[in-house]
Amino acid sequence: MTAPGSSVNFPKIIIVGGGFGGIQLAKKLKNKEVQVLMLDRHNYHTFQPLLYQVATGGLEADSIAFPLRKIFKGQSNFSFRNAEVLSIAPEKNTILTTVGEFEYDYLVLATGSDTNFFGSKELEHYTMPMKTIPEALNLRSMILQNLEEALIEPDPTLLNFVVVGGGPTGVELSGAISELKRHVLKNDYPELNIDDVNIYLIEGSPAVLGPMSTQAQRSAKEFLLEMGVTVMTGVTVISYDGEIIKLSGGIEIFSKNVLWSAGVKGEFPEGISKEHLVRGGRIKVDTVNRIDGHNTIFAIGDVAAMITDETPNGHPGVAPVAMQQGKLLAKNLLRIINKEEPEPFKYFDKGSMATVGRNRAVVDIGKIRFQGVFAWFVWMFVHLMSLVGFRNKLVVFVNWMWSYFSYDRGTRLIIRPFNRESMTEDTAHK
Amino acid sequence: MTAPGSSVNFPKIIIVGGGFGGIQLAKKLKNKEVQVLMLDRHNYHTFQPLLYQVATGGLEADSIAFPLRKIFKGQSNFSFRNAEVLSIAPEKNTILTTVGEFEYDYLVLATGSDTNFFGSKELEHYTMPMKTIPEALNLRSMILQNLEEALIEPDPTLLNFVVVGGGPTGVELSGAISELKRHVLKNDYPELNIDDVNIYLIEGSPAVLGPMSTQAQRSAKEFLLEMGVTVMTGVTVISYDGEIIKLSGGIEIFSKNVLWSAGVKGEFPEGISKEHLVRGGRIKVDTVNRIDGHNTIFAIGDVAAMITDETPNGHPGVAPVAMQQGKLLAKNLLRIINKEEPEPFKYFDKGSMATVGRNRAVVDIGKIRFQGVFAWFVWMFVHLMSLVGFRNKLVVFVNWMWSYFSYDRGTRLIIRPFNRESMTEDTAHK
Repeated sequence: MTAPGSSVNFPKIIIVGGGFGGIQLAKKLKNKEVQVLMLDRHNYHTFQPLLYQVATGGLEADSIAFPLRKIFKGQSNFSFRNAEVLSIAPEKNTILTTVGEFEYDYLVLATGSDTNFFGSKELEHYTMPMKTIPEALNLRSMILQNLEEALIEPDPTLLNFVVVGGGPTGVELSGAISELKRHVLKNDYPELNIDDVNIYLIEGSPAVLGPMSTQAQRSAKEFLLEMGVTVMTGVTVISYDGEIIKLSGGIEIFSKNVLWSAGVKGEFPEGISKEHLVRGGRIKVDTVNRIDGHNTIFAIGDVAAMITDETPNGHPGVAPVAMQQGKLLAKNLLRIINKEEPEPFKYFDKGSMATVGRNRAVVDIGKIRFQGVFAWFVWMFVHLMSLVGFRNKLVVFVNWMWSYFSYDRGTRLIIRPFNRESMTEDTAHK
Repeated sequence: MTAPGSSVNFPKIIIVGGGFGGIQLAKKLKNKEVQVLMLDRHNYHTFQPLLYQVATGGLEADSIAFPLRKIFKGQSNFSFRNAEVLSIAPEKNTILTTVGEFEYDYLVLATGSDTNFFGSKELEHYTMPMKTIPEALNLRSMILQNLEEALIEPDPTLLNFVVVGGGPTGVELSGAISELKRHVLKNDYPELNIDDVNIYLIEGSPAVLGPMSTQAQRSAKEFLLEMGVTVMTGVTVISYDGEIIKLSGGIEIFSKNVLWSAGVKGEFPEGISKEHLVRGGRIKVDTVNRIDGHNTIFAIGDVAAMITDETPNGHPGVAPVAMQQGKLLAKNLLRIINKEEPEPFKYFDKGSMATVGRNRAVVDIGKIRFQGVFAWFVWMFVHLMSLVGFRNKLVVFVNWMWSYFSYDRGTRLIIRPFNRESMTEDTAHK
């Protein structure tokens, strides 16, 4: 099968993945003399930074996702196929997908990252990851189902929440569960003793929000403690059997709610030789995001590790890196096609931020650091503006205003019950 | 297991179902000397009249559902259990549920209706019903998946949409699919020939919108034709094998998208003797909604058929009937407890309406009948005001305004792919 629109004789660029990087790349190729085919297993772009709000009933799933076809409406050199890539055959310049084989002149892997359970089948089976919308919805259902169950039979494992991993996701998730507890559960479950609900945040390194400033780390921890979250740093997970989580230092917690946000790894189809992989399962790329030894295959964003003297572990796996690499790669592909020299990537770090709860966020912008109410407004503004689509911005804004004034999280519905036993690869993540 | 809160010695009223009727009943019992226990297999109330907009990408599922616990926040004589009722044991005054057995003094079945396939396993397997939120989401996924598939392999069965049943649901659904086709698919799928997308509405009786005025019926049909829907009245379904639907009069249509809105039947747990059932699988009740021979068991709303001289088939299965019966039954239960005579039900018919599309609706209010733009605004206003919860009203309003000005239907995401083969009773409806 040839790529759609292949009657025109422009070079064919296949982009795998409609995340932050893939979208920027395809947008910048608008009206250029190339044919673009994007493949994604979802028909929508996911705004991952707000997944935790979907998981905790603050937002509808639909307001943080955006149809990929709509983003590229009217871009005549763009096609989309809703498909999963099975393997790459670099020797033939083709990829095999669930909807057939496609030829490319240039292939860009913008496939992002998946949850890293560091090889533990046990953790993979019993803990809840949160990298996709279906996963966030499963998490929401599980939390609510466990609360309903706690009313039928008193069982402390149902009311203890353990969040593993103190990065932005873990901090935001444990903060959101604390708000759910204090503002919603209290009213929704008058029969439960709200003091029986405990929230633990487990982090292996000495501080939460590892890559941020010491000031941000300290404030985030303080905010979490104020909100009733038990923060355990320098503590690692030894095992979890679905009911008891064993931690280093002889700590054991009874819990049926263990949320896993302790690590990610690069995710990509077969056909990339193992020799290109570095720490975290990312693919090593050169300064123009090209994979060594593959002249026509590139990787951008979370899945790529551009290892230089300044970035010995590659760039952080955040949206701005992916977006900047996507934009530059569009330029560079056109240069390469025109036999010009591509320009090396330079990351412009705009800063980082995390929110812990209502009126509580931390922001680092270069040497400028601030925390609290103003940081929270900045966080909201930046995230609102980054959402794709006016409708989404509006709906999220309405929801946030509503939550702000009512202390409510409106969407606490068990729309698809979560059932670990009946879950297959298919129903779990896709 | 005794009902929650049973330490107080007030009469125990169990309400099965948190639909329009059950909610009104429980609300009117606030601060009265009774204990109320509501059971529902969902933890939310579904605003069924707008399900078709969820199915066609116009609204998020979360904005037409409302957490049942939240509705009764602060009502101290009310408890909720998220459970399915398995059977009733009238001789013991108990019911068996998925979370245990409960005793009652009075039992009210407000269980509503389910799709009626009139005994055909084939139709049940191959057509798509739309009575619950998960079903509406499956329908949305299926429509979008079939469009994606149509790009891979040209296949007319993927682009023909057949809606069976010309009641309000069928009319609204076929109208919404037509708008999806004309305003969204055209832009989203430039590679498809939009003229290959056909929409058929099949109705067995001589007119669509059976119970409405001739004027409304005629206008609705005209609107549908203007919008490019092929309307077939007086035509019935003979068979459907998943690819070819055979109709009376020798008509055959190739379609993988057959949506079933041709009938409903009462839905209720085991333990009600078959002798009480009338047409449509509803339970025959007396003028105070009591089931014959069961002094302490009542049925309201869709599941109940109050057969009188004026209503030989019972009342129509619409929200206002359920709500009015729920309100009156609250009063009557208190009268019965106080050994007073209950008051017979009188239905106050406020009229009926249906929307076909943008600027096109039909309204009958007694002898007053109007159609078109004004009717459409009335329809929107009434439905907006009937939604439970301010957040839902606001979010739906924002979405409608957005769609009105942009001609867009924003939530066309395949969040959980639909897979007929892997579907179980559990994943299909719940």
